[in-house]
Amino acid sequence: MSDRTNRQILLIEKPKGKLGPEHFRMVQGTIPEPKEGEVLVRVCYISLDAANRAWMHGATYRAAVETGSVMAGGAIAEVIASNAPGFAKGDLVFGDTGWQEYAALPAKHLQKLPRLEPTTHLLSVFGIAGLTAYFGLLSVGQPKAGETVVVSAAAGSVGSLVGQIAKIKGCRAVGIAGGKDKCQWLTSELGFDAAVDYKDRGMFPALKAAAPKGIDVYFDNVGGDILEACLSQMNLNGRIACCGAVSQYDEPSGAGPRGVPGLIVVKRLTLRGFIVMDFAARYGEALADLQSWVKAGQIKVQEDIIEGLENTPRALVGLLAGENRGKRMVKVG
Amino acid sequence: MSDRTNRQILLIEKPKGKLGPEHFRMVQGTIPEPKEGEVLVRVCYISLDAANRAWMHGATYRAAVETGSVMAGGAIAEVIASNAPGFAKGDLVFGDTGWQEYAALPAKHLQKLPRLEPTTHLLSVFGIAGLTAYFGLLSVGQPKAGETVVVSAAAGSVGSLVGQIAKIKGCRAVGIAGGKDKCQWLTSELGFDAAVDYKDRGMFPALKAAAPKGIDVYFDNVGGDILEACLSQMNLNGRIACCGAVSQYDEPSGAGPRGVPGLIVVKRLTLRGFIVMDFAARYGEALADLQSWVKAGQIKVQEDIIEGLENTPRALVGLLAGENRGKRMVKVG
Repeated sequence: MSDRTNRQILLIEKPKGKLGPEHFRMVQGTIPEPKEGEVLVRVCYISLDAANRAWMHGATYRAAVETGSVMAGGAIAEVIASNAPGFAKGDLVFGDTGWQEYAALPAKHLQKLPRLEPTTHLLSVFGIAGLTAYFGLLSVGQPKAGETVVVSAAAGSVGSLVGQIAKIKGCRAVGIAGGKDKCQWLTSELGFDAAVDYKDRGMFPALKAAAPKGIDVYFDNVGGDILEACLSQMNLNGRIACCGAVSQYDEPSGAGPRGVPGLIVVKRLTLRGFIVMDFAARYGEALADLQSWVKAGQIKVQEDIIEGLENTPRALVGLLAGENRGKRMVKVG
Repeated sequence: MSDRTNRQILLIEKPKGKLGPEHFRMVQGTIPEPKEGEVLVRVCYISLDAANRAWMHGATYRAAVETGSVMAGGAIAEVIASNAPGFAKGDLVFGDTGWQEYAALPAKHLQKLPRLEPTTHLLSVFGIAGLTAYFGLLSVGQPKAGETVVVSAAAGSVGSLVGQIAKIKGCRAVGIAGGKDKCQWLTSELGFDAAVDYKDRGMFPALKAAAPKGIDVYFDNVGGDILEACLSQMNLNGRIACCGAVSQYDEPSGAGPRGVPGLIVVKRLTLRGFIVMDFAARYGEALADLQSWVKAGQIKVQEDIIEGLENTPRALVGLLAGENRGKRMVKVG
């Protein structure tokens, strides 16, 4: 296969402040040969996630991404040659292929995927995003029917599902998102009970109005000022599912939210961080629920598919600026 | 009884910054008559707690204390006249008598105490302090044998017990306290494995050296910079029992600790706030354990008893400055 080239996007510099397309460069590499125990895959859809940016800060739940290397990222890919038992040409897999057209990866780092239509759902509602929303809300947040659930980055891949699952569970669902259009979309299309525009001056009173009985569960994707605002509105024995801190990835504020730990004590709050992989043993049960909800029309799946590997850097930059609705991914080739 | 006076200490001004004796004034009141359902008590020992200062900021888990009123505070008291069934002259009770010699209180707000020697243990190891240490460490922190437990304000009433209970449960116990003498006392007298002087410049490396395998459970009495330092040393799936934020009571920093929520996510930490009253249904089990540990010499009880109601203001001011070792209380009359 070495007669064909492998287009790759390298991270050429770690951003000091905001990430931009200039921190990446496309190069023409070669298609690797799979070693013993490895599988050669062709990348189909690259998942874009705020976490990609966090990986640039240093080791998190995975090693830091390094400059000069192919930018890391999960993707749906198709096996085109296998040197490992259990994988055959034509299999669909999920793995950290990085931002490139072809990758040779150890079979043990790949996860086999079922064939279903549309394939892209394997990255959104039936992928990391759906599983993150499911376990973060239900296992970490533990909402009870009648309670108020607030989620930030509510128009994003995870947030848009969190609100819909909250509704399925009989909760009041409130989304926090940037801009009137997104807020309108959350309530009119996705069935959120209320939406709060954090770019609006009056976010604090708007949050109070949207959650008049206070917040029982806050699903936090952003940290920073929005976490601080929600902390002040939490009810006694409230729970905060700490999923991400996207407000801090490009521009860390250098200080944490006020009210920590004072409000945590007084209101007996529980803040719990999680990573979806912590729940890997229970993916089956989650997928069964998610599939039945999608089939029944209780969950609307929104996807934001960008064409062309070369557009991956700006797709990530735009995601960090909040320009997407639902799950953003790049279709490769 | 109205021929005798009732010395009382009023809060005459809410402090804007540091609390001082000038915020209080002693007055001569009258001894009240107990109404129907009330009990007249003579105050024996007033409990001093950092929380007394927090009450001045506004409503917490109790109403705010107000200027011009007798300063609030829990105490051991003896019933001298009862207008309520179930209480008789000579009974020993715990209640929020406030800082005065006599109080008439609704019987339902009083808790009957057993007679035991020394009576003061009912305010320390067998009182709120002991119960707070017990439930905060064991139910909220959930330490396992072999894990590292760190506690701040470690020479205080709660902290000194947390470390000793951690040792009983087979953990490595590390105390954070102010000054070499206190640190020395924690390790040589109370059996802590290590102590860290937060007033020393090298607190950060000292904490690392004291907890070389990282922190599994952090019992937080202080918030602020020390919480921030501990956050950075927490192990994966670590737990933080949020008990108080004494560093913020006199001088709120206006910002929370860095790393919230970033480190909470990456390390999958759980921060949980609690108030000892949340565990009221289980006090019996805790007291049985605490009594057996004291009897067996596994817990050393340190008390810091100051004589005279008139000294209560400076006793609280001194407590907030960290001058006490173990449970501070004022013996009245």
